[in-house]
Amino acid sequence: MKITIGAFLLQQLRNLNVNHIYGVPGDYNLALLELIEHDASVEFIGNCNELNAAYAADGYARLNGAGALITTYGVGDLAALAGIAGAYAESAPVICLAGTPPLYAMKNHALLHHSLADGNFDNVMNCFKQFTVAQALITPENAATEIPRVLSTAWQQKKPVYLQLPSDICDVVIETAHQFAAPRLPGSDANHLGLAAAALFKRLEQAKRPLILVDQMVDRFQLLPLVLAVAQKFAIPLTNMPTAKCVIPESTPGWQGGYSGNLSSPELFGRMAQADCVLSFGVRLVDSTTGYFSQQIPPQAVVDIQPYSLQLDNTSYPAVTAADLLHALLELAGETNAPAQATLPKPQHRLAIPSDAPLGQAYFWQRISHFIQADDVLVVENGTSGAAIGGIRMPDGVTLVNQPVWGSIGYTLPALLGTLMAAPARRHLLFIGDGSFQLTAQEVSTLLRCELKPIIFLINNEGYTIERYILGESSSYNDIGPWDYAKLPAVLNRHATPFCAAVATGQQLEMALEQASRQDRLAFIEVKLPMMDAPSAMKEFCQRCNNFNFGLHNPRRNA
Amino acid sequence: MKITIGAFLLQQLRNLNVNHIYGVPGDYNLALLELIEHDASVEFIGNCNELNAAYAADGYARLNGAGALITTYGVGDLAALAGIAGAYAESAPVICLAGTPPLYAMKNHALLHHSLADGNFDNVMNCFKQFTVAQALITPENAATEIPRVLSTAWQQKKPVYLQLPSDICDVVIETAHQFAAPRLPGSDANHLGLAAAALFKRLEQAKRPLILVDQMVDRFQLLPLVLAVAQKFAIPLTNMPTAKCVIPESTPGWQGGYSGNLSSPELFGRMAQADCVLSFGVRLVDSTTGYFSQQIPPQAVVDIQPYSLQLDNTSYPAVTAADLLHALLELAGETNAPAQATLPKPQHRLAIPSDAPLGQAYFWQRISHFIQADDVLVVENGTSGAAIGGIRMPDGVTLVNQPVWGSIGYTLPALLGTLMAAPARRHLLFIGDGSFQLTAQEVSTLLRCELKPIIFLINNEGYTIERYILGESSSYNDIGPWDYAKLPAVLNRHATPFCAAVATGQQLEMALEQASRQDRLAFIEVKLPMMDAPSAMKEFCQRCNNFNFGLHNPRRNA
Repeated sequence: MKITIGAFLLQQLRNLNVNHIYGVPGDYNLALLELIEHDASVEFIGNCNELNAAYAADGYARLNGAGALITTYGVGDLAALAGIAGAYAESAPVICLAGTPPLYAMKNHALLHHSLADGNFDNVMNCFKQFTVAQALITPENAATEIPRVLSTAWQQKKPVYLQLPSDICDVVIETAHQFAAPRLPGSDANHLGLAAAALFKRLEQAKRPLILVDQMVDRFQLLPLVLAVAQKFAIPLTNMPTAKCVIPESTPGWQGGYSGNLSSPELFGRMAQADCVLSFGVRLVDSTTGYFSQQIPPQAVVDIQPYSLQLDNTSYPAVTAADLLHALLELAGETNAPAQATLPKPQHRLAIPSDAPLGQAYFWQRISHFIQADDVLVVENGTSGAAIGGIRMPDGVTLVNQPVWGSIGYTLPALLGTLMAAPARRHLLFIGDGSFQLTAQEVSTLLRCELKPIIFLINNEGYTIERYILGESSSYNDIGPWDYAKLPAVLNRHATPFCAAVATGQQLEMALEQASRQDRLAFIEVKLPMMDAPSAMKEFCQRCNNFNFGLHNPRRNA
Repeated sequence: MKITIGAFLLQQLRNLNVNHIYGVPGDYNLALLELIEHDASVEFIGNCNELNAAYAADGYARLNGAGALITTYGVGDLAALAGIAGAYAESAPVICLAGTPPLYAMKNHALLHHSLADGNFDNVMNCFKQFTVAQALITPENAATEIPRVLSTAWQQKKPVYLQLPSDICDVVIETAHQFAAPRLPGSDANHLGLAAAALFKRLEQAKRPLILVDQMVDRFQLLPLVLAVAQKFAIPLTNMPTAKCVIPESTPGWQGGYSGNLSSPELFGRMAQADCVLSFGVRLVDSTTGYFSQQIPPQAVVDIQPYSLQLDNTSYPAVTAADLLHALLELAGETNAPAQATLPKPQHRLAIPSDAPLGQAYFWQRISHFIQADDVLVVENGTSGAAIGGIRMPDGVTLVNQPVWGSIGYTLPALLGTLMAAPARRHLLFIGDGSFQLTAQEVSTLLRCELKPIIFLINNEGYTIERYILGESSSYNDIGPWDYAKLPAVLNRHATPFCAAVATGQQLEMALEQASRQDRLAFIEVKLPMMDAPSAMKEFCQRCNNFNFGLHNPRRNA
């Protein structure tokens, strides 16, 4: 069939369910934007800057399966690169489309704006090669094959990709044999699969103290129903890394709480240390998710299940998908059902009556734990928010969007723009600190312009509290400018009427929550909390971080 | 002598006259920040985000000779990369210091936050290799040699460099033989220099229609006094590329106005086309500075003078510095003085009396041309501001800070933070469009926090007017959120009292200019101008840009 390159690209994006594309216009991408302007099924959402666009596309991808942004060459795509790297670290399939100078000019090494003006057009691509799993400079000759290759790589690996589209070929007609169908994941080798399932089944039959350890992969590859079925069938207790908080519904029978090395509950830490078979789903043991490598997981117990392979004892099984493996395992298990596991008791605490005393972190997060509802989308920044949310027992159906590995402050506000558009029927709550907020604050403008209605909690504790606990408690570099946060949203849209409040007491918080719950407009609540008040989990983490980072040469020790 | 790595780094920075370091704290850079916290001669300026920090360091470097920023690994330095690339394109020696994970952890390929958690610590460095002229991962073994090597490369080439400092070695004591002395530029080979000067002198003696064409290099290498002396001694008319606007004082006898191909004055365009000897100082002929390659410069006339070499007729002279060459040339010329050249007449226009009619671009910029004073620092965004400022005959001593080649919108606001600190005794005016402003707007907070007093003109023409003239005049992707700009500064600092005004008429503008002139506080003037009102130079440029970018496949033509 005959189709223009631009139209082909949009069709391929729609195949990945991408209906919103974030970005910033620039002269090299205007032809593609003009195409989208007249396309009924894909909408362009203009961001304030490209880093924010990358984060929005990431948030969208988390709930939608894939996301995309359009930037212009050099000034635009490079400004998005940190966000793309974050999408890689956290496994979000984000498609970064860059409009580049016209093809003839790149081939002729012309001296152009938005480049170093030295005729080199490889340098931006070289950067993106470091932080994406597939890349291409699209030409009329390769468009029919490269666009599907790059996009399907993003889908298969759940990682970002990068496409350069020269400004002058968007309307070029190409011939393509590709059917427009939903993307498929690679299947398994039947023989490998049979051997792998049999080996795993045998391993489980022998196991006395098995455990399932879930990481991001279960969410990204939508494996949860199969994992839960296996847990139930074989009566295997479950836990998750902090990177997969809320992936397992926390009322699931057999769920043991989250695992983060010796920061986990002593029961779970002991259970893991004693386990003889750990079904480990794409697990990454990272400093920030293990309390600085405090995990104790017996190496010989680990069954390493990856999206497309299995490592069991000393045998590797390539070409075995996790989904096929779990299906086969359930078939081998037959009809017999294991006894039901218990549900982890909920921590009981009675919320104090709201008073006019100054708010503290402990009360605030207790109150929030009652405010969070089933099926909420929680977008949570690192820092006190991340530490506190990590300790809350969540209602079922809650989705948590955060960056526990990449950990770029400022990520969450633009990401919220993406999550809201990917799941418009759900309630979205953002928890963000003041320091983080200042990085990407202007994106509140886009939330208002798009008439979105999240509830934003801005934790104002006067600077980078998490850094203060690592080093420099009273050092000036941990201070930030004293913004009047609650007044900002109204300034960022002359026509909108967001609900904004600054609260410093429990009673004020109560009134603000009541207003915000109406969900008829964007709600922005500045929560004033003491500078050095922080969840104890964060304080412990910061102490370990200080020791890991500075070691012998520890300015805290020397001070 | 014995010194810690951190102290050595700060000493080397002070040698480059760097007394302010921009950046954002992160756990990997806190030891270095703590050192700065207790250092009397270097101050850390905390920015809202890293891209802004890079731009601030760039603005500082333009007026100070060098600038620096400190970021944290991965999330931080990658977010600054676009700004570093801009510093490369525009020749600003910016030193990007990244605090990285501790050296032992990088060597062990530990899975760490702020990385892809795959043990790879080469990828960020690989990106910076694309956009800096020198890089190093500092170790105790190499610090004594690598720090001076990388910093002196920035100084010699007037381009950005990148240093990674692992978090655990800041306080390690090393032995260094290096003297702390002002950095020196490489000298010339005496024989080459003699030959080059003689050849150039002969070439000039034979020239009937010589011309001097100045680019950024004359500013960055501080060659102006020598260039002016040569122009006077040999009675050579002068012109400059748009990238070097204001480098030659515009009252200089013999100055012909700026050269930008056939967008220059017809007299100058003809003079260039007929020239038989063009002393060309580091000239780059870029689409955006030549009206899309409309220059006519006879190739055989070009004498290509670069910072460290000369190309004359068909002979290359390496190891001949531009400064030495000009000195030698002046010596050869002896005492004879050429007749004085004429000063270009000033365009005469009488400013209309301020009225209560809506402001237009033409009146506004005429008024501004009277407001600009000798020795002002003008920080000017691309778009209507850049086009208009390019057409104004400037008083002597004005410095123009902009990005005519890299052209990243949003650059100027954070750059202003740098220019203000580099030249605190001068008056600084910023001209920025609304679309550009939204990219980096939060940095107004830092201007206020540092009690700086620029005059900011925000041109509110409801979106990306320059893009509208290229493509999509009424397309939605060229729209932006309707901010209440004049109310923003007060929100970004609870304690400051900036002067803010929104003006829509000549009379309102007059009152605002009067207030702003007092210079007792930051002044922020939102200037409301019609959406499609633009300097004619910009319209012509956009038409050429459309044709160059979209060619045969021109959506404007097809529409």
